[in-house]
Amino acid sequence: MNSASIKKLKEIVGENNVLDNPADLYVYGSDSSVHEARPNVVVRPQNTEQVQAIMRYANSERIPVIPRGSGSGMCGQVVPVRGGIVLDMKAMNRILEINPQDGYCRVEPGVVDDDLNKALKPYGVFYPPTPASSVVATVGGEIANNASGGRSVKYGAARDATLAVKVVLANGELLSFGSTTRVSASGYQLEKLMVGSEGTLAVIVEASLRFVPIPKLRCLGSAKFNKLSEAGDAIADIMGSGCQPSMLELIDKIAIIAVNKANNLGLPEVEAILLYEADGMAKEMIDVEIGKIQDICKKHKGFDLESSYEAKERARIWAGRAKLFPSLSKYDESLASTSLADDMAVPFSKMAECADKIHEIADKYGLVMTAYGHCGAGCMHTKILMDTDKEISWENARSAVSEIYDFVRSVGGTTSAEHGIGMSKAAAFKKEKAASLELMRAIKKAFDPNNILNPGKLMDGPDDWVEETTLRYQSS
Amino acid sequence: MNSASIKKLKEIVGENNVLDNPADLYVYGSDSSVHEARPNVVVRPQNTEQVQAIMRYANSERIPVIPRGSGSGMCGQVVPVRGGIVLDMKAMNRILEINPQDGYCRVEPGVVDDDLNKALKPYGVFYPPTPASSVVATVGGEIANNASGGRSVKYGAARDATLAVKVVLANGELLSFGSTTRVSASGYQLEKLMVGSEGTLAVIVEASLRFVPIPKLRCLGSAKFNKLSEAGDAIADIMGSGCQPSMLELIDKIAIIAVNKANNLGLPEVEAILLYEADGMAKEMIDVEIGKIQDICKKHKGFDLESSYEAKERARIWAGRAKLFPSLSKYDESLASTSLADDMAVPFSKMAECADKIHEIADKYGLVMTAYGHCGAGCMHTKILMDTDKEISWENARSAVSEIYDFVRSVGGTTSAEHGIGMSKAAAFKKEKAASLELMRAIKKAFDPNNILNPGKLMDGPDDWVEETTLRYQSS
Repeated sequence: MNSASIKKLKEIVGENNVLDNPADLYVYGSDSSVHEARPNVVVRPQNTEQVQAIMRYANSERIPVIPRGSGSGMCGQVVPVRGGIVLDMKAMNRILEINPQDGYCRVEPGVVDDDLNKALKPYGVFYPPTPASSVVATVGGEIANNASGGRSVKYGAARDATLAVKVVLANGELLSFGSTTRVSASGYQLEKLMVGSEGTLAVIVEASLRFVPIPKLRCLGSAKFNKLSEAGDAIADIMGSGCQPSMLELIDKIAIIAVNKANNLGLPEVEAILLYEADGMAKEMIDVEIGKIQDICKKHKGFDLESSYEAKERARIWAGRAKLFPSLSKYDESLASTSLADDMAVPFSKMAECADKIHEIADKYGLVMTAYGHCGAGCMHTKILMDTDKEISWENARSAVSEIYDFVRSVGGTTSAEHGIGMSKAAAFKKEKAASLELMRAIKKAFDPNNILNPGKLMDGPDDWVEETTLRYQSS
Repeated sequence: MNSASIKKLKEIVGENNVLDNPADLYVYGSDSSVHEARPNVVVRPQNTEQVQAIMRYANSERIPVIPRGSGSGMCGQVVPVRGGIVLDMKAMNRILEINPQDGYCRVEPGVVDDDLNKALKPYGVFYPPTPASSVVATVGGEIANNASGGRSVKYGAARDATLAVKVVLANGELLSFGSTTRVSASGYQLEKLMVGSEGTLAVIVEASLRFVPIPKLRCLGSAKFNKLSEAGDAIADIMGSGCQPSMLELIDKIAIIAVNKANNLGLPEVEAILLYEADGMAKEMIDVEIGKIQDICKKHKGFDLESSYEAKERARIWAGRAKLFPSLSKYDESLASTSLADDMAVPFSKMAECADKIHEIADKYGLVMTAYGHCGAGCMHTKILMDTDKEISWENARSAVSEIYDFVRSVGGTTSAEHGIGMSKAAAFKKEKAASLELMRAIKKAFDPNNILNPGKLMDGPDDWVEETTLRYQSS
């Protein structure tokens, strides 16, 4: 890219919406992952026509374009590894329509999840995928990553909520996929293909999203376990029993210790805590669900069972989980919390085995690793706590991550539950989907013949993220 | 195709599994649509390896292959318009795994829907898409068509239930898409792309399907209306109210008359009947739902409200809907019931307007048309009752169908709710998706470079089904 390119982009979006000073390029060079790179320029389109013009220009000049929301992705999805244009979609953040009778809303991709839910609240409905990062995460990014969150066990993921999208292709064409109707059997589900495509196929400029009624009541409970395997057996039994919890969360001992250290919460440092929530319109129904879940916990030696409908009590029970993510960095002052092998999906019946395996592998490589997550969705989160200044830490992390993913595949799991693939998980993803990579590349070529959209990700991501990407933490 | 081809196919699947006598070719030349054609041969693979061998051979010889379940599709999806091999998948009908703890089952594509649900019942769960044709419809056909049924309003369609598939590509390669885990954010959702692809991208040889708990209780109710628009307003209000009916069905006067004539049911011949069902684990909850639905019906001048939890009473209330489909042929002895414009999806708030429009267009062209369907899913079904011996009937039907689809698009609806596109709806589909047809063709090419898989359907279907296809009914 040269100054003529910058000039052309300024003509399209206006002077103020093109950033190319070093500080901005630094900020837009990373997301919430371990990777970094440097774009040539950041462009902030204000409307669809501008996105089309940018894409037409970039395509004619073969300039990479990386669509980006808030950069809360954890796997390097929006790190511009081949330079080019970071397309900051946050200015396109209008809520275009809320249609309670027809059960959907229509939004621009830059709308922040929490803002959308605030706007939906007066209608008595909510948009369910809602990841933990909902205070910053944009709807466009959630769709691109097939995001979900704590309540996906009952309410589904971005793939379920996304009814229709408008997208701009690499060549600037504007297309509509899907239908806002409740069902549709009109051929190829290109709207679903966009979900999880991580900006590699087209730029999402509008989305029609399904919403669901806000439940009147929620009841949150917890149970403690002296063995991780007992908590795991409880999870499998709960999910196999016909119960429909609205949340089911696992927290392991390392996570509890971290939360206690960071917040003086004084949680008992047992091997595992299960948190469970049931919601609905009628208390009788919720009582039945919570009762069944607690019976199953007791059967598997769960103790200190408690539950409450009261907001204050629920906040107390939830406090450990709420503070978990920021607390992990405080487990040990010499260790940083890194998003590596941060999010796998495994069958419910393998959750405990998976958590045990993670600890075993951590011990083997001298790393500290947590195991927590939305176990009701088969979602296992970890963080690797390590001394990021030491090269050996990265080597050990690389080996540990690879072994964890080998295990996940061996039990019928998949590389990512809700955080996506990007670069950090590309190696594992490519192993999991080895036979289909050529087909994926052919599909990408159908959308983006010049490979300008977010190149170097997913099936074209690095086989070795330590050697082949620039790490944010690396001091050497 | 020549005798060498037949010989080769017999080598692959055995003598008994290759049919090429005229009677069989006649039977396999049509489905439940108005179209017919003649295949060169019918081949019945017994396992995946045979499917791979057939595809390798067909691909090398450029022979069209049309994967087929039970042929209950209504739009000509499995009519072999370019001859070739009809691949009858019904022999691959094993249930490979039922995994209650992990919430899925794994089946071959030829499993019949009802058989699967019988096998799931002891586990207290069911596979939800279940169309009205579930006694014959195969799971593979349901996935290929993105089928759904009466309870999709609460439980979703094939797209929601399909977690993972194994497919054989045109070149014989065996690939796995998706994951059996509850959520997955591992890149392109190729499993969702297979749903609704109508046999044009690959042959499904295995599917992992999500199931859900069977509710303990069901309550079915009905309300009558003197104006279709009042029923329509009730539908929109029910769906916008936060109610979650497990079924919501509309039946119009013509359908009621047909049912009465065929079965002497003595239903009052009002302008519209709404049927509504709520299900769940607790009666209190269901009572609340049914109460809310009935209040809304009353507000919109619904009368003769009744409801029951009792199986016998529910069967009585449901009797008219149960007998609707076969009854339509008996509305007038000189008229046949044809599946044309048989299935559109429209926003809930447009259901009544759509039904009125259908009747207006029917009157204009001297046709008899019903309006009924799963209105809780925005699904509007019609049949055209006409004298199929008269050429003018077909001309009128063609005009009527075209105008109906123009209307559906104008209110934000889509060409098919649950029956698929095939050939009958290709013209409307191509109008709806005009801007995306080239992209669809490029995607098909990525899967099937020689265009051997079910050619002449969807984006490559006929623009005029009267002139460009052979009609089963045509006497001239």
